[in-house]
Amino acid sequence: MTDGAPLESTRLDSTHLDSARLDAQFAFLNEADKLKQVLRATTLTDGSRRENSGEHSWHLALYAMVLADQAGPGVNIDRVIRMLLLHDLVEIDVGDVPIHSANGQAHGSAEIQAAEARAAERLFGLLPDDIGPAFRALWEEFEAAESPDAVFAKSLDRVQPLMHNIESGGGSWTEYNVTAEQLHQRVGTKVARGAPALWDWIWARAERFFRHA
Amino acid sequence: MTDGAPLESTRLDSTHLDSARLDAQFAFLNEADKLKQVLRATTLTDGSRRENSGEHSWHLALYAMVLADQAGPGVNIDRVIRMLLLHDLVEIDVGDVPIHSANGQAHGSAEIQAAEARAAERLFGLLPDDIGPAFRALWEEFEAAESPDAVFAKSLDRVQPLMHNIESGGGSWTEYNVTAEQLHQRVGTKVARGAPALWDWIWARAERFFRHA
Ligand SMILES: [Ca+2]
Repeated sequence: MTDGAPLESTRLDSTHLDSARLDAQFAFLNEADKLKQVLRATTLTDGSRRENSGEHSWHLALYAMVLADQAGPGVNIDRVIRMLLLHDLVEIDVGDVPIHSANGQAHGSAEIQAAEARAAERLFGLLPDDIGPAFRALWEEFEAAESPDAVFAKSLDRVQPLMHNIESGGGSWTEYNVTAEQLHQRVGTKVARGAPALWDWIWARAERFFRHA
Repeated sequence: MTDGAPLESTRLDSTHLDSARLDAQFAFLNEADKLKQVLRATTLTDGSRRENSGEHSWHLALYAMVLADQAGPGVNIDRVIRMLLLHDLVEIDVGDVPIHSANGQAHGSAEIQAAEARAAERLFGLLPDDIGPAFRALWEEFEAAESPDAVFAKSLDRVQPLMHNIESGGGSWTEYNVTAEQLHQRVGTKVARGAPALWDWIWARAERFFRHA
């Protein structure tokens, strides 16, 4: 009987710990659900509605799987996939900041960067300590756009809306009156940095929208 | 000059080949976009609208990242993530078959399996030969639900709608008049097979919806 008591209480503690851990994991997963309600400037390829950042993140992860051969040396596609799955989560608090909005100035502003850092603190802070900081580091690596994985991930994140604008007949380029020069500067340089052949291919398909702009 | 000619034509061929390869890769990626328009029986956690299979696939990949510690020995989470990113693509042609529809009989029917195999043939067939068959094999591994990776991926695919029904106050359980026994049989056994502790945790949260059913 006296032997049984500590065992029993150990078992209860362990169950309680497992349960608290799953509580934290699902607090994050349920909060992440809200990314499906954040709308982007870009539409689906058929132009029928705006894309949300949840389905966008799925599509980008699929881009990484399919376009792996476009990545430079040293790129780890599985890390790129994980990075892309997390990359937009801060939009749950901050919203999507379209790259061509505010004449191309809003996207990297200090205010938005600070708000995104607070969002990362809150969201990744929901997770247990052996998960949250690692996720946050992966998101910060993406934002810094310096590592080979992040540079490739950023290229994909810039290519996908381009493809959707091509498919839907102009999309957000028309809406924001984007010029060929602005597209080269805001998007082209970033795509070409991580995936140069991809930029050549897609620009050959995009440039007709700018010929008479 | 005679030395230059073969070089030139090699370069042209190579450009042409690269371009045809990217054409095929984007034919698939643009077709995949349609998964965002396939609606599931399950709603978002707040019950505001039905979830689509594209955003669902993103959420599941995030589940795999967050709940990796719930996986059994020998599970490769990066393979699970890739599997989950692909697992619903056949729904572009076949639609989502809700697990509780047709009194739980529709989901694994021979007709639907044949239609899904045709969809896999068409969709993965859009890709270059060094990508398509590998993707199809990963999807078939998921469907077979035998490998440790597939068993865990299936557990996550069954847990997520459960969580959404809990959060939204009953969701598709109410719609399809699901009983506790049916839930155990159609969902519980599959979750428990790949992630037993996860099933215990979530059933403790789900069972109150069935107490007076
Ligand atoms: Ca993005």
